[in-house]
Amino acid sequence: MAESRKLRMGMVGGGPGAFIGAVHRVAAELDGRIEMVAGAFSSSPEKSKAAGASYRIDPARAYGSYDEMIAKEKQREDGIDFIVIATPNSTHLPIAKAALEAGIPVMSDKPATATYDEVLELEKVVMKAGLPYGLTHTYAGYALVRDARALCAAGEIGPIRKVVVEYLQGWLSDKLEETGQKQASWRADPKISGPGGCIGDIGTHAFHLLEYITGLDVTALQGTLRSVVEGRRVDDDCTALLKLSNGAQGILLASQIAAGEGNGIRIRVYGEKASLHWQQENPNTLLLRRNTGPDETRHASAGYLSADARAVARLPGGHPEGYFEAFAVLYREFADWLEAWRATKAEAPATLPGIRAAVRGMRFIDRAIESNKTGNWVEF
Amino acid sequence: MAESRKLRMGMVGGGPGAFIGAVHRVAAELDGRIEMVAGAFSSSPEKSKAAGASYRIDPARAYGSYDEMIAKEKQREDGIDFIVIATPNSTHLPIAKAALEAGIPVMSDKPATATYDEVLELEKVVMKAGLPYGLTHTYAGYALVRDARALCAAGEIGPIRKVVVEYLQGWLSDKLEETGQKQASWRADPKISGPGGCIGDIGTHAFHLLEYITGLDVTALQGTLRSVVEGRRVDDDCTALLKLSNGAQGILLASQIAAGEGNGIRIRVYGEKASLHWQQENPNTLLLRRNTGPDETRHASAGYLSADARAVARLPGGHPEGYFEAFAVLYREFADWLEAWRATKAEAPATLPGIRAAVRGMRFIDRAIESNKTGNWVEF
Amino acid sequence: MAESRKLRMGMVGGGPGAFIGAVHRVAAELDGRIEMVAGAFSSSPEKSKAAGASYRIDPARAYGSYDEMIAKEKQREDGIDFIVIATPNSTHLPIAKAALEAGIPVMSDKPATATYDEVLELEKVVMKAGLPYGLTHTYAGYALVRDARALCAAGEIGPIRKVVVEYLQGWLSDKLEETGQKQASWRADPKISGPGGCIGDIGTHAFHLLEYITGLDVTALQGTLRSVVEGRRVDDDCTALLKLSNGAQGILLASQIAAGEGNGIRIRVYGEKASLHWQQENPNTLLLRRNTGPDETRHASAGYLSADARAVARLPGGHPEGYFEAFAVLYREFADWLEAWRATKAEAPATLPGIRAAVRGMRFIDRAIESNKTGNWVEF
Amino acid sequence: MAESRKLRMGMVGGGPGAFIGAVHRVAAELDGRIEMVAGAFSSSPEKSKAAGASYRIDPARAYGSYDEMIAKEKQREDGIDFIVIATPNSTHLPIAKAALEAGIPVMSDKPATATYDEVLELEKVVMKAGLPYGLTHTYAGYALVRDARALCAAGEIGPIRKVVVEYLQGWLSDKLEETGQKQASWRADPKISGPGGCIGDIGTHAFHLLEYITGLDVTALQGTLRSVVEGRRVDDDCTALLKLSNGAQGILLASQIAAGEGNGIRIRVYGEKASLHWQQENPNTLLLRRNTGPDETRHASAGYLSADARAVARLPGGHPEGYFEAFAVLYREFADWLEAWRATKAEAPATLPGIRAAVRGMRFIDRAIESNKTGNWVEF
Repeated sequence: MAESRKLRMGMVGGGPGAFIGAVHRVAAELDGRIEMVAGAFSSSPEKSKAAGASYRIDPARAYGSYDEMIAKEKQREDGIDFIVIATPNSTHLPIAKAALEAGIPVMSDKPATATYDEVLELEKVVMKAGLPYGLTHTYAGYALVRDARALCAAGEIGPIRKVVVEYLQGWLSDKLEETGQKQASWRADPKISGPGGCIGDIGTHAFHLLEYITGLDVTALQGTLRSVVEGRRVDDDCTALLKLSNGAQGILLASQIAAGEGNGIRIRVYGEKASLHWQQENPNTLLLRRNTGPDETRHASAGYLSADARAVARLPGGHPEGYFEAFAVLYREFADWLEAWRATKAEAPATLPGIRAAVRGMRFIDRAIESNKTGNWVEF
Repeated sequence: MAESRKLRMGMVGGGPGAFIGAVHRVAAELDGRIEMVAGAFSSSPEKSKAAGASYRIDPARAYGSYDEMIAKEKQREDGIDFIVIATPNSTHLPIAKAALEAGIPVMSDKPATATYDEVLELEKVVMKAGLPYGLTHTYAGYALVRDARALCAAGEIGPIRKVVVEYLQGWLSDKLEETGQKQASWRADPKISGPGGCIGDIGTHAFHLLEYITGLDVTALQGTLRSVVEGRRVDDDCTALLKLSNGAQGILLASQIAAGEGNGIRIRVYGEKASLHWQQENPNTLLLRRNTGPDETRHASAGYLSADARAVARLPGGHPEGYFEAFAVLYREFADWLEAWRATKAEAPATLPGIRAAVRGMRFIDRAIESNKTGNWVEF
Repeated sequence: MAESRKLRMGMVGGGPGAFIGAVHRVAAELDGRIEMVAGAFSSSPEKSKAAGASYRIDPARAYGSYDEMIAKEKQREDGIDFIVIATPNSTHLPIAKAALEAGIPVMSDKPATATYDEVLELEKVVMKAGLPYGLTHTYAGYALVRDARALCAAGEIGPIRKVVVEYLQGWLSDKLEETGQKQASWRADPKISGPGGCIGDIGTHAFHLLEYITGLDVTALQGTLRSVVEGRRVDDDCTALLKLSNGAQGILLASQIAAGEGNGIRIRVYGEKASLHWQQENPNTLLLRRNTGPDETRHASAGYLSADARAVARLPGGHPEGYFEAFAVLYREFADWLEAWRATKAEAPATLPGIRAAVRGMRFIDRAIESNKTGNWVEF
Repeated sequence: MAESRKLRMGMVGGGPGAFIGAVHRVAAELDGRIEMVAGAFSSSPEKSKAAGASYRIDPARAYGSYDEMIAKEKQREDGIDFIVIATPNSTHLPIAKAALEAGIPVMSDKPATATYDEVLELEKVVMKAGLPYGLTHTYAGYALVRDARALCAAGEIGPIRKVVVEYLQGWLSDKLEETGQKQASWRADPKISGPGGCIGDIGTHAFHLLEYITGLDVTALQGTLRSVVEGRRVDDDCTALLKLSNGAQGILLASQIAAGEGNGIRIRVYGEKASLHWQQENPNTLLLRRNTGPDETRHASAGYLSADARAVARLPGGHPEGYFEAFAVLYREFADWLEAWRATKAEAPATLPGIRAAVRGMRFIDRAIESNKTGNWVEF
């Protein structure tokens, strides 16, 4: 019966000037499984109403606070099935806690919280609540990322020896946070973003992608965080050397002052026999290079892809899917889980980033900052 | 007030085994302006119900025929605002006619009809009805196609001298239509697809893209249609030389037997000063090559793009948008138009393919077939 | 014993302002098999001397005419072993004739002569002389062109159905021939270049590449030659539809007014099972796309390449070889042949373009011009 | 008068099984300025004779030792003008010393010596001799590397903030040195190659490229050297963090176990305003990405390139030059220098790597090994 209606989503955040709220809305609804019906889009009730109207939702369900949304939606028969958190980092924990304690599953933007201590608290809340919790590490939703993950797991490239993951952007090459640009402002304010700047905003994505594709854990790291733009209060350029659980080496580069770069998240995984090369700006192909034999370019939707990769394709080969579609894969998996959990208390799907990824991501920020203080390697 | 609710869409077609119906649903709803609320998804009422359930729409609004849908929806206060036609070609005209004569605007898949005679009839119906009619030439929705169009219009490349447009696929390299594959079967049946095979299915897209980007009309053509796979009842490979309205030359290649190709729609426009190069499989960049100066790669969402290109971007640079998003641009423009038309009888937006494109596309098929018979050039 | 010394080359042409003469010198000497020892670099004895000095050859062997060179070199014990012709087209026949009738083998730039009649005469001279004659269709020397040729011959892509070959340049977008630019001037003068402009200068390269790689002959064509730049005396843009000997279709595009293009010679060969894609500006890879299975990128020097491709590589993978090296492959094969011919009257190697390619290339120009006059197909 | 003849070169090394000797020969002779007339190709006189014959040089000038070559050539009127050293590293110093002390200029393969102590001795010898000494850091000869260097010097990308340089190969993924493969064997033997494996063989190239393009010096580094293949006696994978003289950060990756990589030397330089991206496997373009404005792809030979880049081009745009041509640029500059030095005791050209690059490269190896021992940063 679960399939007879769409799941109802309430959003926290996503008001005027926000980028990621609208993205969550598109991604959540893309597969026709979820409908955004309510929101606390802004801490200003007026702005929240205005945002609600722009989303064309019922004006009565555009709330002035997440507390109000949770309280009112709980009383409705057609109340929300879950909330999505699309606010700056420092508010993630209280919102998630309020929802989970009210029995409402949570889909959260990343990083999971502002600090490592907070995520440990969140972990307890999630465990206690026993409710679905998902974390939108978007890049994990790309078909070819799934294929790379499957190829690693199947031993197709042999034991992994070296991984190079990069997330390079150029948009903070200048001191944009002083111009009033909203996205830059909160990210550069440690009170809102947490102690990590670049390392938290995008370093965590790179870190997650590495662990997600390789199936390996980072066990130690040595990190260098720089604030290249003078006067910036958080790091804007990060380099980390990593030890991986099988003894391999990782190199992670994240930067927001890499002039000319757009949204350059890329990964290369070198095994004994072959390597994998993927980049998000051209996401529908995966390059597999062998020590013997021609390079292979694997295309989204092709019949030869791994089952996990084929499972997330919506279009035939040659019809590019992009960022929204990757994002929507996570929502689809969350919706599947939510329905299955309601029916049978099903466990989280292995492919959907959740509370474990949340904790590891915050740990990564914490360890990188610690290492940067001393210049030494730190255990993970 | 128009903005206070989503527009309501009813679909014809899009049942089990269909590819394009689900695409229309995603595209239509992507921007949060439209909601699919009804459908005649199949001529089998049972299959239509089943499809409705999979789309999670109200079971009462999954109809067994488009006539029924039109009749019943007309009686509802919350009836559909427009229909989308996502059926094989031979049914386009009767469906469009029924809707328009009932006062319901139409968004139609392409080609507009099965034959040139039919489109002339459709044109009359549209003119008489005075209702919005849109045609989903998807590729016109890509941001960089809009940019190329604007660059041509602004004279950035100088007067156009030569255009090469290609649409190359490999999926019909074998006689797939004899395997029961649904997509291949109807396309290879002239009674359903019309007299054109490849020329109608994808040649029209290439033709439209050429006229859309260059702003030029094709005035004469010489076409060669081949059925390369033995026993195939329609053409599967087409070549056309074109004369353009400013005297320039066009070359159009369309093939469904180009082994190894995915969905290779590409265009190159050579002007006196520079050329433009775009390809759909990597749609978020446009290459501009000048006789003097470095090549320029223009990226989606960049501030330097033309206003028309920036208008259709939803994500910051480096976050790829794809086929669904291009498709959704057409739906957004259709929704804008529909609301504006209701308010003020606004005319069709210049950027949305409509009845003119419909007629020209069918004329192209007709002229190519005529030329192929004699081997001669034909006026357009 | 043949290997105990380098072969001695005498050049005709290649004086001041010439581009191709210096290229021939580099290419001929690159493999250490040939040494340029003499030349009639210009019809002006002074200029010829000056060119000889810049090449650092013995001043006594920089001649004022090819006749003089032939006469004097014949008398030397260490006289030239062959001549290379690097002059404008209209002089090719008399020079080749003089050399061959004097018993001197010839390596000639292309096209072989200025007219079709001339090449028929040349053919007789070559046949009668029974001496090595090579034609420098440079692109045939690239390793991956050899690989493509071998893959076609081995049936790796199945029977060929369609070939698209292009040679697009932009350097004649303006009327460069009126600025005194030497390269442009003679090419735009039918008395020197012959009746074909673009079709002769680069169309012949595209034509040769198509026949060389596919192993098929062109049997009929329909050509369109345009002089896009007003007042130009020869064609600068050519399009030809081709029938190939196995019934396949060919499309050939050649242009010198394709603004922004550099030296864009590219070919795509579509077979029943797969396609090959090669482009000269990135010559060290060959793309093989199959209907099933990932795309393959084949790299120069790799062990998996065909034997013919491996035979011409000089460097390990990843060390790019370019235009000079391709050119030098032809000289190496010519040197091999010359030594073998001296020893055993060996026949021409199958991989080296020679008199047959010369005749076919001139026939191609002739047929394209003929077809362009009437608009009709012509037999080849 | 210097221009009236070619310079005469004698090679040490380059016998049977050697790769780099033949490359030196081609590169040296490519521009018609130098002729290889003598060689001590092997320490076995027979093998040296055989190699001489294969190079088609005068049998009397194929010597059994470099001492013999130096002694005998000194006595000839047409004796060699310089020697090239193309032997394994451990012999570089004695050969260079013998030549320089005999008054013969030296062109040397890299790294300059086997150890840092040796290069300090070499430096003294060079200084004392006052003779031309060049070091073949091949990649410095590419036109677009020259362009990148000029763009950095001109401030086109603003002050440099971050540099990522990589040199990734896969050919030593297995223990190739145990198969008898000659290239692998000596490189994996510290007695012949010196203490550095990968760091010496290719890490030095990456290091040089970074300093060469940016014009900055490395002032400190932290290096990690791994021997990933079990039992290998030298490092096969290196990572180094660098401090540059302007305070910028560098990241250097070099590996010979990066499966699937060919000869992947690549560099990215991020300035305040823009970044430069170059990769050797596609050497004829340079990508310039700005924070504002489209990406620019700069092509070899184009008129808009810097003068230094245009100076080294031999062919018009679109005619790819490769590894041999880059190499030959260094030889041409060496020849220019040698002639100028003879005439006027001219100083070394700024663009040709010489003794300073020799010392810095060996210092780099030394410092990286030192840092690897302790895990700490070391001053340079």
